[in-house]
Amino acid sequence: MNVKGKYSRRKFVSTAMSASAISVLPGAQKLLSGFTGALGGREQNPVSLTTTPAWPDQGILNLAMSPYAKLRNVPVHAVTIEAGFWSPRRETNVTASIPSMGKLLEVNGRMDNFRRLTGKSTAPQRGPVYSDSDIYKWIEAAGFALQSDERPELRAVVDKDIRDIVAAQQADGYLNTYYVLEHAAQRMEPKTQQHGHELYNIGHLLQGAIAYYRATGDRTLLDAGLRFVNEFLWPNFGPGADKKPLFSGHPEMELALIELYRLTGDKRHLELAGYLLTGDSRIQFKPENYVYHFCGIPFTSRTHLEGHAVRAMYACCGATDYYLETGDQTYWKTLNTLWKDLVSAQMYVTGGVGARSDGEAFGDPYELPNARAYGESCAAIGNMMWNWRMLAATREAKYTDVIERALYNGINSGMSLNGTLYCYRNPLAFDPSSGDKIRNEWYDTTCCPPNLERTLASLPGYLYSTSNEGLYVHLYDNSSLDWHLENGTGLKIRQRTNYPWDGNAEVAVAPAEPAEFTLFLRIPGWTDTAKVAVNGKAAAGATAGQYLAIRRRWSNGDTATLQFDMAPQVLEANAEVVENNGRVAVQRGPLVYCMEQIDQGEGVALKDVALSAGKDSSSGFEETFEKDLLGGVLVLRHPGTVYEESADRSSLYFSHNAPPRKSRPVRLTFIPYYAWANRAQTPMQVWTPMARA
Amino acid sequence: MNVKGKYSRRKFVSTAMSASAISVLPGAQKLLSGFTGALGGREQNPVSLTTTPAWPDQGILNLAMSPYAKLRNVPVHAVTIEAGFWSPRRETNVTASIPSMGKLLEVNGRMDNFRRLTGKSTAPQRGPVYSDSDIYKWIEAAGFALQSDERPELRAVVDKDIRDIVAAQQADGYLNTYYVLEHAAQRMEPKTQQHGHELYNIGHLLQGAIAYYRATGDRTLLDAGLRFVNEFLWPNFGPGADKKPLFSGHPEMELALIELYRLTGDKRHLELAGYLLTGDSRIQFKPENYVYHFCGIPFTSRTHLEGHAVRAMYACCGATDYYLETGDQTYWKTLNTLWKDLVSAQMYVTGGVGARSDGEAFGDPYELPNARAYGESCAAIGNMMWNWRMLAATREAKYTDVIERALYNGINSGMSLNGTLYCYRNPLAFDPSSGDKIRNEWYDTTCCPPNLERTLASLPGYLYSTSNEGLYVHLYDNSSLDWHLENGTGLKIRQRTNYPWDGNAEVAVAPAEPAEFTLFLRIPGWTDTAKVAVNGKAAAGATAGQYLAIRRRWSNGDTATLQFDMAPQVLEANAEVVENNGRVAVQRGPLVYCMEQIDQGEGVALKDVALSAGKDSSSGFEETFEKDLLGGVLVLRHPGTVYEESADRSSLYFSHNAPPRKSRPVRLTFIPYYAWANRAQTPMQVWTPMARA
Repeated sequence: MNVKGKYSRRKFVSTAMSASAISVLPGAQKLLSGFTGALGGREQNPVSLTTTPAWPDQGILNLAMSPYAKLRNVPVHAVTIEAGFWSPRRETNVTASIPSMGKLLEVNGRMDNFRRLTGKSTAPQRGPVYSDSDIYKWIEAAGFALQSDERPELRAVVDKDIRDIVAAQQADGYLNTYYVLEHAAQRMEPKTQQHGHELYNIGHLLQGAIAYYRATGDRTLLDAGLRFVNEFLWPNFGPGADKKPLFSGHPEMELALIELYRLTGDKRHLELAGYLLTGDSRIQFKPENYVYHFCGIPFTSRTHLEGHAVRAMYACCGATDYYLETGDQTYWKTLNTLWKDLVSAQMYVTGGVGARSDGEAFGDPYELPNARAYGESCAAIGNMMWNWRMLAATREAKYTDVIERALYNGINSGMSLNGTLYCYRNPLAFDPSSGDKIRNEWYDTTCCPPNLERTLASLPGYLYSTSNEGLYVHLYDNSSLDWHLENGTGLKIRQRTNYPWDGNAEVAVAPAEPAEFTLFLRIPGWTDTAKVAVNGKAAAGATAGQYLAIRRRWSNGDTATLQFDMAPQVLEANAEVVENNGRVAVQRGPLVYCMEQIDQGEGVALKDVALSAGKDSSSGFEETFEKDLLGGVLVLRHPGTVYEESADRSSLYFSHNAPPRKSRPVRLTFIPYYAWANRAQTPMQVWTPMARA
Repeated sequence: MNVKGKYSRRKFVSTAMSASAISVLPGAQKLLSGFTGALGGREQNPVSLTTTPAWPDQGILNLAMSPYAKLRNVPVHAVTIEAGFWSPRRETNVTASIPSMGKLLEVNGRMDNFRRLTGKSTAPQRGPVYSDSDIYKWIEAAGFALQSDERPELRAVVDKDIRDIVAAQQADGYLNTYYVLEHAAQRMEPKTQQHGHELYNIGHLLQGAIAYYRATGDRTLLDAGLRFVNEFLWPNFGPGADKKPLFSGHPEMELALIELYRLTGDKRHLELAGYLLTGDSRIQFKPENYVYHFCGIPFTSRTHLEGHAVRAMYACCGATDYYLETGDQTYWKTLNTLWKDLVSAQMYVTGGVGARSDGEAFGDPYELPNARAYGESCAAIGNMMWNWRMLAATREAKYTDVIERALYNGINSGMSLNGTLYCYRNPLAFDPSSGDKIRNEWYDTTCCPPNLERTLASLPGYLYSTSNEGLYVHLYDNSSLDWHLENGTGLKIRQRTNYPWDGNAEVAVAPAEPAEFTLFLRIPGWTDTAKVAVNGKAAAGATAGQYLAIRRRWSNGDTATLQFDMAPQVLEANAEVVENNGRVAVQRGPLVYCMEQIDQGEGVALKDVALSAGKDSSSGFEETFEKDLLGGVLVLRHPGTVYEESADRSSLYFSHNAPPRKSRPVRLTFIPYYAWANRAQTPMQVWTPMARA
């Protein structure tokens, strides 16, 4: 633990960012005046919160004063995603997903759980011990949505929910709807800390409260979270003989506490996060629990990803946040070791993680089964969140490549195109005859749906970052930015692109006044070639998997144009991924493709097809944009082979000398993986055998 | 339930087998006179036992009066396995394995568990709830060993154990060392029936007691089992409103009760087995429990193998036993459905079953991972036991093929060559860097070691069967038979063979007097060609996977010779076994081969090799019998390729257009799978990629 000075507060006055850098949304400004510290009627002296920047201008992460952050977030409201790839998804998210999930949480008693504690409901407790977190994550989704737009109806619902939540907080600051009344005796007991998700719930409360505060300035829920942390948790739990030990159980509180620290400057919040990341040897579980829970022993003792994938990803988020604040090199070393494990042995080509259903867990290195893939939506989101933090720490585009891979594929697949059905698992092969229903409106453990909703709602915040040198462009989509450089110079950016359907993007740069700074344009790792020009003049040095730094004096009217190679690619997996031996996957730009049975010819069974991939495998594809299919997708078609099973092949084992299976040529149809299972459920696969030469 | 006449007894006098058919071992005859009904001092009227045949001549299964058995077992003592493939394993079993396991059971308190109930030990209960069964299975191993040979020292130990066991039986007939004293309140409670293994333990007691009785005529342990069944279980549990319901929990009691029925003729024993196989709807568990436990719902409602593999296999044994006694066609239909599932989608090439570590369970169809294979030794044994029963019901060689595959490979691998280390898992690929130790002297759940011991000890009983037409030869090994046809005609058989190292066998037939009967010679399913001759004259009709029936008047001196094609075979797996796509396995005769890293050249990593298999893949093998290696094995060598990983290949995903990996030719060395992990632990694999053409 490197944190010193338990009770010191960061100075909020002296910052690198000038006061002129603070911009405020018109709507937010109005709200700001209305909330100069809503106290919830409980606390006499409200905890003071940073004004660097002012609350409406704090991004997904407020790294404005994080000493080891090389990039700073741009607020969600500063980016407008316009008609293009993400806008229909985002529109569906706020018009269908968030409202319908709000109703389902209500119908399934998740809000009544709070109300029963104040006598406003007589319904019994419903749902698993972590049900509070689903409400909080949904509030976070609403909070991010409200950062983009005023939505009075949504806001009214959330405000009402927040009133019911804070009313259920106990006199000592504890807040939980399960470990109360009949379960009160188990509150914060060691076994409860292991499985009860008390801290996990509060972590999500804090994240939801912070997003909502940054949208509205309303700190009612945030103050409830602060009371839990400052009045209940800190005085009673933590290091020191006079306090009881803590076990995180499901990492989440760690990153929430650090974001809270970024808001309060209260070093106790950072220290508590570090304490949870270290574990407390006074609380002992079986060795396998430290694997599964991915907490309880020092994070810095980890050598590989293991255990419950969401826990591991959230722990990595928290540890990276801790590094961003402390610069602790032991953390940094571990984070790099784990990241290398991620990308070299543990990540699906879709950016999904967590191979095993058993324990929703990472498997052995290279254990990446397709049909049995777990690939929980929450874990892919955790992967994106972690890489967002690693990117902030380094400015290295290899992290953005992972973010893009997860976002466009393993996360994007998690929500149906109509926005009301969700995947918990995101397998890379599927046969509906297994009886599994992959997309569902509701899960009793409904962690994934609001997680997907908060991710889509926060998406504008992932497109750009600032550094002390200029502006980073991470993701490409039709959109505009209205923000400023870190020195305060106003800057507008307008992206015009049909990405990811084609590989051209026009980035119009409009500083408030001509200014020298660097525009860092991400060249995706997947592109074979990249052409960049500024005002029509070629810019040298574009390299796949790196940011192209263009330093010049930029003026209004300057335009950078980018051209990436969108030719479909045929990918192989490392030989140690045994299920993919002899198989290939198709990717085009950031999109991983799959085949669904429904798109193949009559009598063509997916399990019997092979792709005829020559050495120049990109050349055989035919591309068709089908605007009426699956919300508009670019369909790929490629020559292949379909085998007929001979009698011999119906055996489990047979001689290699047996006559080859009869085959005939066939045209195979591929759609983007994210769009699968939006029609009648038929078999799907990402990895397809290559036809034998 | 088709069983009628609850309390009727089978007539033991009228049987198909004449009294002259009864032969008695010299040693056994002596014992017989000493045990005309040892009562253990508890029961006034001992339960009468069948004399058809006399106890020493009852085989592994006594099918003498089973109406739907088409084959009958030959007693273990009638077959002498001579110097050849199995004799060193069997010698090690009785000189090293059984004695050392007996000591380990003692040292680990498993016998003290009994003694503490009579005050002879003050040690606390040790081991899991099923620990009694390990003692009983070990007694069964000893019983089978004593059926082959008098071993006074072994017998003295077992006799002493049996005295301690029966002394621990309670006044009401209940016998268990866990659900007594401090756990007595849980005895036979529904939850205990689910997980407590009370019936499972007694099932193994009965099997052990029967094997020991058939070896010695001593019915002390058997009478204790009968008391449990007749005095404790039957009056209090079973169908009917006046009795409490039963849940088998871990199938085992079913087959034990039916073998007991074959001994007692007491239809209650058959009825109770049928009742357990049907389940009792008065006892309700969650749906997943009926999957995992493979009992509690009607066996005849099963449509596929699932759940805990050993439970499923033992249930199938019990259900086949039930069919053999009742001819119930609904059972037969289900058994055929399950068997088809076994061989078409659920069995490893080694005969192992149970793909998943999680729940030690069957996976989905074709879910047969290699490194993560569970393949518990007990499950492969259960597979062999089940197929032994299916064979008796049909006389079809396809079942013998499974028996041989499991016996020579997935079972044989379970015990180290020195006889004192055991596999619980039998994976088809292994990397010691996983930290897993595959062979161990002792497991706290030590089900597999005595199971392997009883299997090897009973092996002579699996070589032959009789039918009303003659004699069946199932397995080939240097050995002699001294038995008789079912009509009583004495018959000696002498096999001379170096099987499985070569494919020639000479079967000398010596009836006591010339007699017309059919000799059924098994032609293994794996052989491409089979030549059979009688007295040098070719016999037509030999077909792989069938018994060749040779009906003639046989006289002393007649000899059948067999010649199977032992050329190594390169096998592929069904395309749906995704881990084996593009991979092949090598089999020679009944032996599946594997590669161990230790046998490959310097710098040749197993994970980087491929087999250069042309279309006539058998031709490239070089065979060398290495008598000093691994107890003497025939080693195979074949051309292959070793790849060097290029930089690209160290990525998880890379372009199919990437340059191929550099490779160089290499000579690959294969050893029989059963002999793996008997030297320094290095990587092992059964399925190897084929080099790309």
